Amino acid sequence: MSYGNAILDAIEIKKFGDELSENLIREVVAGYTEGEVPDYQMASLLMAILIRGMSYEETLALTRAMADSGERYSFPECVDKHSTGGVGDKVSLTALPIVAACGAPVAKLSGRGLGMTGGTIDKLESIPGFSVGLSEERFRRQVEEVGLAIVEAGELAPADKAIYALRDTTGTIDSLPLIGSSIVSKKVATGAGYLLYDVKRGSGTFMKEMEHARELADLLVRLSEDLGIKASAVITDMDAPLGRTIGNALEVRESARFLAGDELPEDLSRTARYVATRLLELKGTPDPEGAVENALSSGAAYEKLREFVRAQGGDADILEDLPVSDEIREVTAPRGGYVARLHALGIGRASLTLGAGREKKEDEVDPGVGVEVLVGVGERVEQGEAVARLFGGRNAERAEALVREALELSDEPVEAPLVILDSL
Amino acid sequence: MSYGNAILDAIEIKKFGDELSENLIREVVAGYTEGEVPDYQMASLLMAILIRGMSYEETLALTRAMADSGERYSFPECVDKHSTGGVGDKVSLTALPIVAACGAPVAKLSGRGLGMTGGTIDKLESIPGFSVGLSEERFRRQVEEVGLAIVEAGELAPADKAIYALRDTTGTIDSLPLIGSSIVSKKVATGAGYLLYDVKRGSGTFMKEMEHARELADLLVRLSEDLGIKASAVITDMDAPLGRTIGNALEVRESARFLAGDELPEDLSRTARYVATRLLELKGTPDPEGAVENALSSGAAYEKLREFVRAQGGDADILEDLPVSDEIREVTAPRGGYVARLHALGIGRASLTLGAGREKKEDEVDPGVGVEVLVGVGERVEQGEAVARLFGGRNAERAEALVREALELSDEPVEAPLVILDSL
Repeated sequence: MSYGNAILDAIEIKKFGDELSENLIREVVAGYTEGEVPDYQMASLLMAILIRGMSYEETLALTRAMADSGERYSFPECVDKHSTGGVGDKVSLTALPIVAACGAPVAKLSGRGLGMTGGTIDKLESIPGFSVGLSEERFRRQVEEVGLAIVEAGELAPADKAIYALRDTTGTIDSLPLIGSSIVSKKVATGAGYLLYDVKRGSGTFMKEMEHARELADLLVRLSEDLGIKASAVITDMDAPLGRTIGNALEVRESARFLAGDELPEDLSRTARYVATRLLELKGTPDPEGAVENALSSGAAYEKLREFVRAQGGDADILEDLPVSDEIREVTAPRGGYVARLHALGIGRASLTLGAGREKKEDEVDPGVGVEVLVGVGERVEQGEAVARLFGGRNAERAEALVREALELSDEPVEAPLVILDSL
Repeated sequence: MSYGNAILDAIEIKKFGDELSENLIREVVAGYTEGEVPDYQMASLLMAILIRGMSYEETLALTRAMADSGERYSFPECVDKHSTGGVGDKVSLTALPIVAACGAPVAKLSGRGLGMTGGTIDKLESIPGFSVGLSEERFRRQVEEVGLAIVEAGELAPADKAIYALRDTTGTIDSLPLIGSSIVSKKVATGAGYLLYDVKRGSGTFMKEMEHARELADLLVRLSEDLGIKASAVITDMDAPLGRTIGNALEVRESARFLAGDELPEDLSRTARYVATRLLELKGTPDPEGAVENALSSGAAYEKLREFVRAQGGDADILEDLPVSDEIREVTAPRGGYVARLHALGIGRASLTLGAGREKKEDEVDPGVGVEVLVGVGERVEQGEAVARLFGGRNAERAEALVREALELSDEPVEAPLVILDSL
């Protein structure tokens, strides 16, 4: 089959702002995935889409075509969550053991991707022995027996993977329909029946404006529902990193400590509770808030985390004290004041510089490096007081400068920011 | 040097409709020409330009950058003309010998390019012995001694060549600033001091609307003037083919016959006279109309054609009777009526089908094939009367069907169309 005409037709239609048919979208996606449509033609179409936009129907058709481009799983009884990506984002590591402990099974297929810290898969791999590559049969059995399994997604939605890589190098990332279809196509392919989207808004994210975050949240829920998933969304703050740690092992430690009973930091504690509650609501669990509190206070959520880690071969006894780099550098406050902002983007870059994330797809992640911030927005610091601790020797000076730049101090008292900004 | 940032910066700027700086345009053009900028990034930028447009200043900068991307010649005393391309367009073959005979030297560097019939270079190559590849020294000497030389352009404006090939496959042809900068960059590199643009309007051209043809003509003149060329433009009709023949040897024959004294067909006769007059005006020749009539009636223009052909090694004695295919097929009128239209595009396709032009760059042109139309718009034909003659055996049936489709008959009398539509 030749897709040459489909892509040229699609370009002609979209460059004038007209609507692509579902069939044409399917042919273009198939042609690109099979390597029949060259990158330069797809790039031309993507730019036309970025500028002209796509109707909801077009976006739905694109999502469906990409979801169908590879293997599709089906876990209709399971819940899952998806975050649009933030700095120090450990909501999966904390909220999912809670909901599993409350009896809602979780089957999560996750990617590595690019990021200032690793993805959930990278974080879990910082646990000695932990395996992210279960066979499908073992994965299914673990979901049934433990109620929680997280593995690395293989060739899910290969069309999305190819298109995303092209968007990344052609200036066509920042398009709402392209972002929405990319996210939902992967989630449809992973096949969970209940899905909560955690849309991050703030300086460390795609969505700098609340309005855009709301539009994206709306789109994700609508696409998911139309593709057979019961879905809802929350919008959470990502002006500052979530919690106090950024880096793979550091984040697992912080998550385990929270589930073990540590109520601090408050932003992580509130977000994990809120997301877990909303997931249980979706699934129809009675009194979800009570169930979440009970799972935390009884230690059931913490036990579920340990059970899950053990089931995937990880050492569950050292989660709160996973090994991290012993090359430690303290960053101190240049003057006294109230912490007005702690820019997520800057802290994320510091962590990336130390080796916690990937600048290029082929980069190796160092599990033991990262940043621990010692203060939160609204807190008072004195001159010379330690505001952050850097773990790792690589580029530590550059990382220190980045953390210093990310810290904004004010002479006036500052209120701690909201964490949950909106939900739908 | 790395051009990675220049192209990404340019994409970011242009996708929001902002203006590219001259420096950025230069870097992108250089990067693409040197193969540092990949096709897919350039395609993304071209689509953003197509949709968002470019200011005049951006278009000028792009033209200059492309003109400077390869060798540049300089013939400040010479005149040249450029046609935006039509079917049966033999204005160069007729008007240029006239102006050369009037003392205005012509130095023409021309491309082959794609087209339904060949370019001027292909037409000249249908003359036995004619060489289109003179050394620069011999070319310059011929311009001085004969006053007329036409050779194939080598690596003029290689940036334009590369960008045009990409536009051709990414749906980014139909952009006024891209069309204008492409044309003018090549003319600037060829270096003639006086330039007349013949912008074709009609069904056989890019410019279907008079308004668009005028915009393009304005842009070509303005860009040329700002790049040091004295320029002007005419807009001529291309709803029907120009003259009565389409095909390389056929067109040389028709051109030679016109210069030898044949006053028919009238559209060719009027266009050649008009273009020659305007070129002489540009160059400042006194009484240009009188000079043109004199060059024709005295036989000086015809003699100049023969002198030019001989100088480039061609047989000047058989120009009016160049060999053509002896496989001839007549197309007859399906009914009686007045010729209302003779669609240039359809006749051009018939000619291409017979082998007179190129569908792909690597196609060989057959010099002896083509179409001779035997009637003009406005003329009366009877049922069964021959309306066209096809030369060449390849795909003759398909070509016949195309000619039939191109012929529109009316029961009411039809006025012959204007040939010169506008000038500036």
